[in-house]
Amino acid sequence: MDEFALIRQYFSDIGHVAGVEVGIGDDAAVVSMPPSTELAVATDTLVADVHFPASGAAGDVAFRALAVNVSDMAAMAAKPRWFTLALTLPAADPEWLQAFATGLGVAAQRCNVQLIGGDTTRGPLTITLQLLGELPAGQRLLRSGARADDDLFVTGCLGEAAGGLALLKASAVTTDAAKALLQRFWEPPIRTELAVQLAGQLRAAIDVSDGLLSDLGHLCAASEVGARIDLNALPLSPELLACHGQLRAVELALTGGDDYELLLAADPRHRATIEAAGCTRVGRLTAASGIHLHRDGEPAATPAMTGYRHFHGD
Amino acid sequence: MDEFALIRQYFSDIGHVAGVEVGIGDDAAVVSMPPSTELAVATDTLVADVHFPASGAAGDVAFRALAVNVSDMAAMAAKPRWFTLALTLPAADPEWLQAFATGLGVAAQRCNVQLIGGDTTRGPLTITLQLLGELPAGQRLLRSGARADDDLFVTGCLGEAAGGLALLKASAVTTDAAKALLQRFWEPPIRTELAVQLAGQLRAAIDVSDGLLSDLGHLCAASEVGARIDLNALPLSPELLACHGQLRAVELALTGGDDYELLLAADPRHRATIEAAGCTRVGRLTAASGIHLHRDGEPAATPAMTGYRHFHGD
Repeated sequence: MDEFALIRQYFSDIGHVAGVEVGIGDDAAVVSMPPSTELAVATDTLVADVHFPASGAAGDVAFRALAVNVSDMAAMAAKPRWFTLALTLPAADPEWLQAFATGLGVAAQRCNVQLIGGDTTRGPLTITLQLLGELPAGQRLLRSGARADDDLFVTGCLGEAAGGLALLKASAVTTDAAKALLQRFWEPPIRTELAVQLAGQLRAAIDVSDGLLSDLGHLCAASEVGARIDLNALPLSPELLACHGQLRAVELALTGGDDYELLLAADPRHRATIEAAGCTRVGRLTAASGIHLHRDGEPAATPAMTGYRHFHGD
Repeated sequence: MDEFALIRQYFSDIGHVAGVEVGIGDDAAVVSMPPSTELAVATDTLVADVHFPASGAAGDVAFRALAVNVSDMAAMAAKPRWFTLALTLPAADPEWLQAFATGLGVAAQRCNVQLIGGDTTRGPLTITLQLLGELPAGQRLLRSGARADDDLFVTGCLGEAAGGLALLKASAVTTDAAKALLQRFWEPPIRTELAVQLAGQLRAAIDVSDGLLSDLGHLCAASEVGARIDLNALPLSPELLACHGQLRAVELALTGGDDYELLLAADPRHRATIEAAGCTRVGRLTAASGIHLHRDGEPAATPAMTGYRHFHGD
């Protein structure tokens, strides 16, 4: 099967949203934006055996690829709308492609986005998505808007994806709890609706892709503040605690990447609204720089692990 | 050097255009479009040793990556504005990265686009760009707008890039003419200004990436027409003729990919305007389907070669 037939067969009908003037099949797609909106643009690449186990099911890989990119939209409080897919494959395996397209379709429907273009090429399995989102003019949520004494919140639970991956590497995905953790790696949460809903109450946001400490560091640097994290407050799932125990669970929550939850900063007067939306308050920002951990009101040591960084040590 | 430092050092300042509200460094970039414009979106991946010789100079690779993507904008008569870069690298080699960034900066300035975001990952050398362009609402130039009896034009000369690559593969890049051909592979033409200028006179366009016959086939299929090409009219450069001779030059012009010239269809009443802009008339569209070649007014055989297709034969 050649490239053109392949695109037609598997990728012509992934998701449906408004504003698509020209979809897949011409030299470029054309979309129209509502008046007084700005365009948010993000791209992320997933390389097999670097960002995900190459043994992963094609549908899981597709879901994760889209969810990870949509996460960047959530962190800007942008509504994701359209995306392109650049798919590099060692070979055109119809079974793999069908499963990949199905997983992508499920994710697209969940995220409310439409595939509008792409490119398929031959080479080592690499998936690059680019997401386009819209947001009301001037209302983007940046990393740099936080201030000292803002509350810090996270969505969902932390450490599960890294906890699941660790079990996979140790060939220890045997219990239901372990399977649930690993599935959190393959199906990152979709937090766009929550981010858009809360945007008016938030000062800054970032998605937790490299680990809480690492991404909090980015937010603090951009906002020129420090932070204090209450370890007792970290949201840890029963499955994470069951598989890894309290001490390791906290480490994973602080330093394990791949959660794709949101880290949010807000004026304390919005605390009730944000907690009512299901977010967990994990600390606050400080005028003094540096990230300080506390447990039971006492300073605690920072784990030695850090978030995953590509090319680290080169 | 870690990923974050790498991005900051090499890619924070590539091109400058209006409308960038948030550039590199946050979860997503944010751009604003002028009123009454639509957004054109295209993406293309270049895999080392599939789309270009891995031995290519980093600056050349960067230039080609951007030019190839900008070509899709030209084919829509869209003005390219912003782009993202997803760069997968086996290692962070500072010398290579510096040269790549320099080449990308030169290309960005030439194309009048700005790098607004991206992702760097570790893996086999793969470059995916996504281009965003703007065009007046409703004025996109599609493949499907051509009609029978329209003139067919091409920009520039055909076959040079494929002719240069063939010499490279045969280790025969020894003469100035051969070097010039190979350089046409590395520096595809930038046809956006011409396309935007002529847009009002054109009915359809496609860029010649897979070879004239292959891409004309796409245009004919989308417009439900056939075509007649006059082989005597094909624009062949002195360098191509010098290196490959007349017969092979025609073959390369018809079937060699990688030219990234534009194939344009227009009502014959605009012929003078389009020729005055430097385009060469190479044939016309026909109500009867199929692509027919003519030489000296007589039917000629179609070469057996076809445009390069990924996964062909899988």
